[in-house]
Amino acid sequence: MSKYKYIREAAYEANMQLPKLGLVLFTFGNVSEADRDLGVFAIKPSGVPYNELSPGKMIIVDFDGEVVKGNLRPSSDTLTHAVLYKHWEQIGGICHTHSAHATAWAQSQRDIPIFGTTHADYNTVDIPCAPPMNDEMIKGNYEYETGFQILNCFKEKHLDYQEVEMILVGNHAPFTWGKNAAKAVHNSAVLEFIAQIAFMTEKINPDAPRLKDALVRKHYERKHGPDSYYGQ
Amino acid sequence: MSKYKYIREAAYEANMQLPKLGLVLFTFGNVSEADRDLGVFAIKPSGVPYNELSPGKMIIVDFDGEVVKGNLRPSSDTLTHAVLYKHWEQIGGICHTHSAHATAWAQSQRDIPIFGTTHADYNTVDIPCAPPMNDEMIKGNYEYETGFQILNCFKEKHLDYQEVEMILVGNHAPFTWGKNAAKAVHNSAVLEFIAQIAFMTEKINPDAPRLKDALVRKHYERKHGPDSYYGQ
Amino acid sequence: MSKYKYIREAAYEANMQLPKLGLVLFTFGNVSEADRDLGVFAIKPSGVPYNELSPGKMIIVDFDGEVVKGNLRPSSDTLTHAVLYKHWEQIGGICHTHSAHATAWAQSQRDIPIFGTTHADYNTVDIPCAPPMNDEMIKGNYEYETGFQILNCFKEKHLDYQEVEMILVGNHAPFTWGKNAAKAVHNSAVLEFIAQIAFMTEKINPDAPRLKDALVRKHYERKHGPDSYYGQ
Amino acid sequence: MSKYKYIREAAYEANMQLPKLGLVLFTFGNVSEADRDLGVFAIKPSGVPYNELSPGKMIIVDFDGEVVKGNLRPSSDTLTHAVLYKHWEQIGGICHTHSAHATAWAQSQRDIPIFGTTHADYNTVDIPCAPPMNDEMIKGNYEYETGFQILNCFKEKHLDYQEVEMILVGNHAPFTWGKNAAKAVHNSAVLEFIAQIAFMTEKINPDAPRLKDALVRKHYERKHGPDSYYGQ
Repeated sequence: MSKYKYIREAAYEANMQLPKLGLVLFTFGNVSEADRDLGVFAIKPSGVPYNELSPGKMIIVDFDGEVVKGNLRPSSDTLTHAVLYKHWEQIGGICHTHSAHATAWAQSQRDIPIFGTTHADYNTVDIPCAPPMNDEMIKGNYEYETGFQILNCFKEKHLDYQEVEMILVGNHAPFTWGKNAAKAVHNSAVLEFIAQIAFMTEKINPDAPRLKDALVRKHYERKHGPDSYYGQ
Repeated sequence: MSKYKYIREAAYEANMQLPKLGLVLFTFGNVSEADRDLGVFAIKPSGVPYNELSPGKMIIVDFDGEVVKGNLRPSSDTLTHAVLYKHWEQIGGICHTHSAHATAWAQSQRDIPIFGTTHADYNTVDIPCAPPMNDEMIKGNYEYETGFQILNCFKEKHLDYQEVEMILVGNHAPFTWGKNAAKAVHNSAVLEFIAQIAFMTEKINPDAPRLKDALVRKHYERKHGPDSYYGQ
Repeated sequence: MSKYKYIREAAYEANMQLPKLGLVLFTFGNVSEADRDLGVFAIKPSGVPYNELSPGKMIIVDFDGEVVKGNLRPSSDTLTHAVLYKHWEQIGGICHTHSAHATAWAQSQRDIPIFGTTHADYNTVDIPCAPPMNDEMIKGNYEYETGFQILNCFKEKHLDYQEVEMILVGNHAPFTWGKNAAKAVHNSAVLEFIAQIAFMTEKINPDAPRLKDALVRKHYERKHGPDSYYGQ
Repeated sequence: MSKYKYIREAAYEANMQLPKLGLVLFTFGNVSEADRDLGVFAIKPSGVPYNELSPGKMIIVDFDGEVVKGNLRPSSDTLTHAVLYKHWEQIGGICHTHSAHATAWAQSQRDIPIFGTTHADYNTVDIPCAPPMNDEMIKGNYEYETGFQILNCFKEKHLDYQEVEMILVGNHAPFTWGKNAAKAVHNSAVLEFIAQIAFMTEKINPDAPRLKDALVRKHYERKHGPDSYYGQ
């Protein structure tokens, strides 16, 4: 039995969630799951419709972006995944979509303000929007540089990728991650929902204030850390 | 046969309506049903996906928030339910969701103006938005204090919880209630719809006037009170 | 076999289209079908969920609003239907919903401007919004007066009910009609769509002009009148 | 076996995608597929609901708009299709819908600005909105002139129909095309999505800048031309 069976199935299952959750039109999204011991991840093949996918069609790629196993071309965003896995050693899954509201915020080149407890249940800061790259990076190894664009944005804003598991890439669309592919997809759905309600919040009250710090801390700590008491 | 069978089943059925009505993403909601004779309510376990629920997994809790029976941890919002049951003696069900439009109004910290007869079919006032708590209450027994935040808002605005069966908790999300869990869920769906059309009404006409009093009274009294003539 | 069989089935089928077309939440809508020879119409019973309806539950009512046959109470809007049937002799079906976008325009108390050919495929004017009634009428025979509110609005605006088969009742919601119940429901779905795209048109371009007259005439005449060439 | 079998089936399958993709209400859309060797195209009959269609009901029409075979009246937009096939020799399929967001932009008489990479994955320019025709053209051979309205808009803006496979007809709605009917429908779904996220982008940030040129080129060339590397 292939040593890649587990991550292929996990990546397959996670990719199949994207259309079910309404996060993709056609093939506008991809998910990967990593195996840290083997130093590889399984990722969706490029441009293949979800209803034609199978675990066996997932491509195995190493953290430098080299294809290890698989007959199809991997997602065009593969190098972005590789860079994030290589530099952020605690993540096990990555998800990229063009979900409507999150993509609109990315196109707006604005961080999503933290307006409520739904947001604070996931993280304590505005969801960052990385500025567009400079032209040299775009013309160079674009998808590889997109990975660094994300890393640099977290570095400059002093964010912790284990707390904030989501980003908007300016003019482009969201990336999310987590301990595995399923959690990365979960985060993409949450980000889309946060983006939707933040959009409406500003329309209802252009002066809506950010959530106050005591509520930010309370809600985040209900779900995360040593004193959390959400879930089983 | 367990004396809790009825409320467990009622709470289970009501919780299962939330995804069907499009009111929740993942586990962002919970419903409870009370038995006034037994002095307890049945509530959803915390963080368990709806498709894994069963009547037997509902947790039995008393009106002080103490678990009476059940192997799982109850919803993290359990103490809010307990406070409302304890102080509002005529209610038999409570529902909490993060439905999109209602949550956006809550994040906007604005009451929902009464713009039309759809709203007046349910109550005669703007749907109240409780202001965020002070920091001491947040850092203290947060969910317990959320119950008092709701009670205090009704007291200050001189509202009757038997007429107005819904509230927005500022920065957070809606709570609704009623004679039983099914009615509480019904009210959550209605609130989401009222929030949606009020949102659009202000976008179409920023100077849209509130519904005039004669229409408010007429529509409310069609459905409620001794002269009602709606339904069978 | 009952002489009401045909209109009961037609009214039943038309009512069942409302949830399928996304035009109603819970029981927020009702449709009727008239038999001009018998001088009656069949209408939904009040407050009964759509999935509990059957042709036999439709109530038979005459054009003065008196129940002729049926064990349940008819829709609370029955008198409005009766007035329209009595005064507009060419219509055979009426539909009332609280569909989201059309209701938002009604709450805004604005006519829907004719912005495009989708609108002109159905009629040549802004979709009228009747102003709220005066308080005496509201406190009197409200649903009966709603019928006259509609008739008066058409009279004042010199509109032809056989061309313009839809209206917004200010602060309330839309009514539509047609040669039969199925066409009335069709018109409600079209009105909701026109309301949606007009809403977005104004957001995209606050100075969007009305459709010019040559296009209004062309599109309307493609579908209606002696030179129409749409359909089979 | 009929020599039209292939295009009839292709046109049928493509038309059936319109309701599945949420691009049409009732019969508000039509798709055709051409056979360049035979000099004809197969198109939807006018006003027939999608669930009553079959391949055999598709009408065969030549590039001058004359019906070659078929018992039903072809789509009222048939002459527009004919003009485009006649003048743009590389296209094999055309799709027309009244999808909500794209139609709202058309009614707004504005080009859709290129705000992000989702847009640039398909073309490198703002999606053009053709201005309304003059009254003489409207009163003349309207659908035929609509074809020239589209051709003229592309000529005036120096656009290449093989790169930009979509247009908004001002006050009316979108037309899209491609190598075959399936691709034309694909483009209609993409256009609706681009229209949706551009709408929200401007609401989130009224000063949102267009995508910079390096990103436009990069994303377009990932998917098109000799150096493309998207898909299999």
